[in-house]
Amino acid sequence: METMLFDYVRLQQFTQEILQAMGHSAEDASLAADVLISADLRGVDSHGVARLRGYVNLWKAKRMNATPNVKIVHETPSTATVDGDLGLGLVVAPKAMRIAMEKAENVGTGWVAIRNSNHFGIAGYHAMMALERNMIGMALTNATPTTAPTFGKEKMLGTNPIAMAFPTEKQPPMVADFSTTTAAVGKLEILQRKNLDTPQGWIQDKEGNTITDAHGLKKGGALLPLGSDREHSSHKGYCLGSIVDILCAVLSGANYGPWVPPFLAFLEPSAHQVGKGIGHFVGAMRIDAFRPAEEFKQHMDNWIETFRACTPIDAKQKVQIPGDYERETTAERIVSGIPLLPAVVDDLQNLAQEFSVAL
Amino acid sequence: METMLFDYVRLQQFTQEILQAMGHSAEDASLAADVLISADLRGVDSHGVARLRGYVNLWKAKRMNATPNVKIVHETPSTATVDGDLGLGLVVAPKAMRIAMEKAENVGTGWVAIRNSNHFGIAGYHAMMALERNMIGMALTNATPTTAPTFGKEKMLGTNPIAMAFPTEKQPPMVADFSTTTAAVGKLEILQRKNLDTPQGWIQDKEGNTITDAHGLKKGGALLPLGSDREHSSHKGYCLGSIVDILCAVLSGANYGPWVPPFLAFLEPSAHQVGKGIGHFVGAMRIDAFRPAEEFKQHMDNWIETFRACTPIDAKQKVQIPGDYERETTAERIVSGIPLLPAVVDDLQNLAQEFSVAL
Repeated sequence: METMLFDYVRLQQFTQEILQAMGHSAEDASLAADVLISADLRGVDSHGVARLRGYVNLWKAKRMNATPNVKIVHETPSTATVDGDLGLGLVVAPKAMRIAMEKAENVGTGWVAIRNSNHFGIAGYHAMMALERNMIGMALTNATPTTAPTFGKEKMLGTNPIAMAFPTEKQPPMVADFSTTTAAVGKLEILQRKNLDTPQGWIQDKEGNTITDAHGLKKGGALLPLGSDREHSSHKGYCLGSIVDILCAVLSGANYGPWVPPFLAFLEPSAHQVGKGIGHFVGAMRIDAFRPAEEFKQHMDNWIETFRACTPIDAKQKVQIPGDYERETTAERIVSGIPLLPAVVDDLQNLAQEFSVAL
Repeated sequence: METMLFDYVRLQQFTQEILQAMGHSAEDASLAADVLISADLRGVDSHGVARLRGYVNLWKAKRMNATPNVKIVHETPSTATVDGDLGLGLVVAPKAMRIAMEKAENVGTGWVAIRNSNHFGIAGYHAMMALERNMIGMALTNATPTTAPTFGKEKMLGTNPIAMAFPTEKQPPMVADFSTTTAAVGKLEILQRKNLDTPQGWIQDKEGNTITDAHGLKKGGALLPLGSDREHSSHKGYCLGSIVDILCAVLSGANYGPWVPPFLAFLEPSAHQVGKGIGHFVGAMRIDAFRPAEEFKQHMDNWIETFRACTPIDAKQKVQIPGDYERETTAERIVSGIPLLPAVVDDLQNLAQEFSVAL
């Protein structure tokens, strides 16, 4: 499928203008646009401007608040619980991360559980905010129920990603950002567009049979936890998804498990709610709360150089460091532009018209 | 293979006496024996008394110190770095966890990075220490290099487990404790004893070919990260193992990656060391640093009941909650005893003779 290339600055400006037209402050709109476009730059196309329409639809359905009062509802020196006032997760999560980093400055680490939010874009963005302050950053979120626990038929968990970012000296920072399912929804979408099947072990049908239909999720099926099946330890992926769900929602007072409100506005949230909105959990640890930052960063360089030098199975495919692909993609897309599919361009053009904003 | 049943109290007493005969204080020996036998009770046979001989051998090789001065070398209100003085990980880790919990009492959370330690038994024990204090507990450790990164041939990481424990009200606590590889070493040992092959996706040979030889690790092969292959997201298991390695060792000043000293005394540690001993990372978060503990625990009960009630694919195999198997095994083994293989019993009898302790 032919993609069109767009300059990222232009897309960011456009996103900001749409968000402002929805009623967001210039500051919030700029922050949210930065988070959203960072996904396009990093090659996580499913989480970038392609989602802008989804956020707009949530707002139209009155399930998202463009003028949220994001506030701390409880805190200790190293923790806070934040109510996102149903704001855009793209705004709520960075604000919560700033609180976590402030606390880390004061007492070594800061941990913030967030309720009453919605989709926060890529987890990696929030974790990476810690890097320039010589901190380790972490960001977790729960998400639309798509995933069955090991042995189960029903969709009980989201793709519940984990992101962690580690500062370095000369090497680029190490940034791990991954869903706790074998495949994330974005991976299915790529196959759907190409009319291809999935590999075995990504998805099951509504009876729990392993299938390879990339459209299986829409037909009542479920994603599988990382590990795919019991023999390959899908119970560990299920544990990871559960840990993320509990830290993000049971700890913060958000909805958890099957009650997480879906991102798609045409899917009604459960009438029964066990908390408010969706939940995130972010954290920051000051390196020098453990050892001098210089020492840590030099050893991180050594760690990275050592793993990069690991003998590859196939000389053509070297061992990667978490974050390599995203960084290389960013460098390329800053120069050559962000490739958007025709359907996404159509969506943006419709939004432009709707909000009287130039694309 | 015929196993013999042993009363856990008797095994615990025996372990304590052996450790005291090695020079440990009564207090340290009792603590370590408690950690070790908890593995046997929880059904993690590879990490229980079967390992006692391994610890003794490390001590004989002067790679373990029976009278360690476990001390804080750096701290902030919410963090500490602990030097284990090459003590038994079974002693060092619980002491570090107590420090983490003290800090959590004071400022909401506590996080301790530990260097200069060795094998700490099951991660779950240390995480579970937090439960009775209404805290969430976490324990990580790096371990003997056994695991290849995605695309790599060499053993660069250990099985690097993650354990987290969450308190509950009426339901039993949720305790997740799992290696970040598809299969842990103990799983291979079970198959070796039965002369069975492994499933595809657990292990590769020294050239990086997928194999099913349960003895493959000893022949120069490597375990595979959770996910097994790139198509099933082994890069996520590799990310997880890397995160554990960095938090445990790069942050604490322990050895990381291929330099982690092996548990087996007959394997020489690398002459080049990048830190001290092996590393752990433990943490504790006070529930009421985020929301009232009662509220959290009631929602944990609801979370657990909801997941337990998830429609199973096969009515004979219900959806499990992390920790179910270990708790059920404990209840059974407290009554019926701990089954030990003849080779383990022989080992213990030899130890009994060597240290003039009655089995």
